[in-house]
Amino acid sequence: MDLDKYVRNIPDFPKPGIQFKDITTLLKEGEALKYIIDHWRDRYADKNVDYIVATEARGFIFGTALAYALGIGFVPVRKPGKLPHDTLEMGYDLEYGTDKLEVHVDALEEGDRVVLIDDLLATGGTMEATAKLMDALKVEVVEAAFVIELNGLGGRERLAPHAVFSLLTYDEV
Amino acid sequence: MDLDKYVRNIPDFPKPGIQFKDITTLLKEGEALKYIIDHWRDRYADKNVDYIVATEARGFIFGTALAYALGIGFVPVRKPGKLPHDTLEMGYDLEYGTDKLEVHVDALEEGDRVVLIDDLLATGGTMEATAKLMDALKVEVVEAAFVIELNGLGGRERLAPHAVFSLLTYDEV
Repeated sequence: MDLDKYVRNIPDFPKPGIQFKDITTLLKEGEALKYIIDHWRDRYADKNVDYIVATEARGFIFGTALAYALGIGFVPVRKPGKLPHDTLEMGYDLEYGTDKLEVHVDALEEGDRVVLIDDLLATGGTMEATAKLMDALKVEVVEAAFVIELNGLGGRERLAPHAVFSLLTYDEV
Repeated sequence: MDLDKYVRNIPDFPKPGIQFKDITTLLKEGEALKYIIDHWRDRYADKNVDYIVATEARGFIFGTALAYALGIGFVPVRKPGKLPHDTLEMGYDLEYGTDKLEVHVDALEEGDRVVLIDDLLATGGTMEATAKLMDALKVEVVEAAFVIELNGLGGRERLAPHAVFSLLTYDEV
């Protein structure tokens, strides 16, 4: 399936010079959403994955659907103060300043195998923090999977040695 | 399935006196997640639903999985500034002050039939704003469905005349 035809390009969002990849037009197409989830399901069905892990907010859109398709559980990574039980926290760099992500400390156990899901890989800051949370919990990251990857921003390199898989890549940014 | 056994009660979160219903323990159980989505899928499969609509962040967790299970598209409702194209905006009351929600104006058309999904119905402010966005777009709300409903907070009444369906209800708040 040519997923690209469902992705809407929004020039100068959220600021001048950025070509924003709008996935809402893709999500609206049931066939495209089904294609994405089925593709990931087939890719990970035989990989002994225990949980799907995704980070709010757009990671949630794809993460739980994949967990459901695989018949396994979902573990959310959230911004500070949103998870009600004891959490492990990881800082990460933004363009201006820093932010933090959290996961419940009892959400995962050493040796659990997880796939990390997000909609888009650009500079990789959010996913790197998520992967570091997994590393800190001694959880095995089978792969970090994205719908869209923007080449040339260093995201894939930043996530190494974790494996990265993307359904759609763009060279322009 | 007794979903209640997977819901974790967190006393005094996010503030004293509140018994927070933690769904992360439920999401982690693949069987429970599957039960929820399958139950909704069976309920709406013959209702000619065009799209599933859900509001960030926790609505995203369940909304897309249901859209995938039904083979239909997903439309996100987001906080201000997150959606990149032209939006319709709706204000709603918080305990202190107000907030806004947005949907892309071209995401839905008059006469579309949607199911609204969120994890929990309490006072109903977020879902009321989402339903009002649908009303403004002349979209037909088949039902607003929740995993958990807290009785006695007026949420169900606030959403009337829209139909409400919940898988799990609690009287204590």
